[in-house]
Amino acid sequence: MNQSLKAQLQEKINRKTKPIGALGLLEFIALKAGLIQETLFPVITNSTIVVFAADHGIAATGLVNPYPQEVTAQMVLNFIRKGAAINVFTRQHDIRLVVVDAGVNADFSAIPSSDWFIHAKQDTGTKNYLEADAMTATQALNAIEQGREIVRQLGAAGCNCVGFGEMGIGNTSSATLIMSAITGKAIRDCTGRGTGANDEQLNTKITTLETVFIKHRLDLLSNDPYGLLAKAGGFEIAMMTGAYLQAYAEKMIIVVDGFISSAALMLAQQIQPEVLNNCLFAHASGEQGHAGMLEYFKAEPILQLGMRLGEGTGAALAIPVIRSAVAFLNEMASFDEAQVSSI
Amino acid sequence: MNQSLKAQLQEKINRKTKPIGALGLLEFIALKAGLIQETLFPVITNSTIVVFAADHGIAATGLVNPYPQEVTAQMVLNFIRKGAAINVFTRQHDIRLVVVDAGVNADFSAIPSSDWFIHAKQDTGTKNYLEADAMTATQALNAIEQGREIVRQLGAAGCNCVGFGEMGIGNTSSATLIMSAITGKAIRDCTGRGTGANDEQLNTKITTLETVFIKHRLDLLSNDPYGLLAKAGGFEIAMMTGAYLQAYAEKMIIVVDGFISSAALMLAQQIQPEVLNNCLFAHASGEQGHAGMLEYFKAEPILQLGMRLGEGTGAALAIPVIRSAVAFLNEMASFDEAQVSSI
Repeated sequence: MNQSLKAQLQEKINRKTKPIGALGLLEFIALKAGLIQETLFPVITNSTIVVFAADHGIAATGLVNPYPQEVTAQMVLNFIRKGAAINVFTRQHDIRLVVVDAGVNADFSAIPSSDWFIHAKQDTGTKNYLEADAMTATQALNAIEQGREIVRQLGAAGCNCVGFGEMGIGNTSSATLIMSAITGKAIRDCTGRGTGANDEQLNTKITTLETVFIKHRLDLLSNDPYGLLAKAGGFEIAMMTGAYLQAYAEKMIIVVDGFISSAALMLAQQIQPEVLNNCLFAHASGEQGHAGMLEYFKAEPILQLGMRLGEGTGAALAIPVIRSAVAFLNEMASFDEAQVSSI
Repeated sequence: MNQSLKAQLQEKINRKTKPIGALGLLEFIALKAGLIQETLFPVITNSTIVVFAADHGIAATGLVNPYPQEVTAQMVLNFIRKGAAINVFTRQHDIRLVVVDAGVNADFSAIPSSDWFIHAKQDTGTKNYLEADAMTATQALNAIEQGREIVRQLGAAGCNCVGFGEMGIGNTSSATLIMSAITGKAIRDCTGRGTGANDEQLNTKITTLETVFIKHRLDLLSNDPYGLLAKAGGFEIAMMTGAYLQAYAEKMIIVVDGFISSAALMLAQQIQPEVLNNCLFAHASGEQGHAGMLEYFKAEPILQLGMRLGEGTGAALAIPVIRSAVAFLNEMASFDEAQVSSI
């Protein structure tokens, strides 16, 4: 880290017409934005949220999720028709939305490629990891590279602030398995209700994931992100892992959404530990395991709205706060400029 | 409360394409917005933040505040020159900003009245309440009526969502005295560092306010908002009290800012208990006593950013979240509309 720049940024923040520290977390965000962009004058341009969608073999068993697997494809169509929550929030805040078919079990070939819909289907969903590996090692690597390429394109289009969302019935289960393997926490402590499991469904989900964890010896993969993806991942999670890596390489501000996005970040961090330097954590999700993830990252979330919807909705609501932080750093008067007495 | 409308709003929220409850606090905000406006289709128009500025006699003693009293007037000029935090945030979010001289110890007569600067000076600051009443009963009533009138004008201009901010060196002390009198909590538990008192200054502040509390027998005024204003209030707080009352009468959505704004709300609530029906609480302020106030109101704050700047900055950052809540209620597709399977 550039200690001299850090000191200069802190001094700039402290000279603004406000008591020292009075803008709370916004001051931390402003500092971080300056450090990421290596400047006293950060700017945020072409903020973008990429939603990666994919299906999960486990979902067809009904053991881990109350909603049917078809909902993944139905929600992708909802994104395309601009009817989902993430459409509403990105429209409100002038954030570009890009939807990616990373591996949905539906034929979207009638939908033309565009700057907001990307065909990147790796397969028609992962395999059921109760019976087989979720994907091949080659698929995992290809998905990561595809995620990188998508963010490379965003960078070329002038985006320097990005958040990643997801849609995939069953994907809280992959996130739980990844979290448990990497943090060493018990499956039970990493499992939440996802889209709304009741008590009985939650217990079945926990038992199922415990079985998967043992079957694939995930305890031996705590430092093997590629192995974890192959055994128990999802195509949206693999692609998001690559997206994080490229966003770091492009020096973007990365807005981390919720539970599944944080699981992908755990994988990305194992490949490139410095990726965390570029991350701001959008919110504390209502999904049970997310608090443990924030603790793992020693992260202070920007919002705490009890949301647990995915799609990047937490990131979309946090981006205006990040813009506010950058705006105060650039636009507020200093004590000297405003001729206000300081202490 | 209209129970039938409430049920219809809840049903509308539950039919949106998301798991039940997955938008967390946004669902509560959407419900409340519908109830305030008595409609399934709430809209937010001409959001406005009014900053009331006034001086406090106690500030000149230096016993309760590290910044000199002159800073109030200097900051009003900073508002006028668009250099303060509230200028930055209202500009960012297309919120109208109105600044009111409620009683600043400076001559602003050279500044023309306009739709964003209002001359409403009650006096050149309150009297030092260590020696006398802060203001006369007539001044308190006049200030309340002036606050009402300002909000009446906003209503006529089409504003239906309003937040109130303040500027006044020494005004956390008035807020502390009001909070202590109304809640019965000890002065020590209601006193925070304001603009940044160190430990020694904080102790002096507490001792000073304990003296004031006893001198004016504020314990006898726990149900007398007018008496509290006269003995220990401020012109900005009195005017804000009236502003709350009128905002309720105009059926506005009221966005409650931080510590001082909440003290004024306590007074307004004593005059019109229903005012709370229209209130959303913008944030949990970093000022120490504010947590106790949120508890008193049984309020769940929208943001928790550790901010403690006043000026209505918390309200300004919360308004986009409130707009998001109204937007999802109006713009998101239902399961039926999107042909998404529900459970």
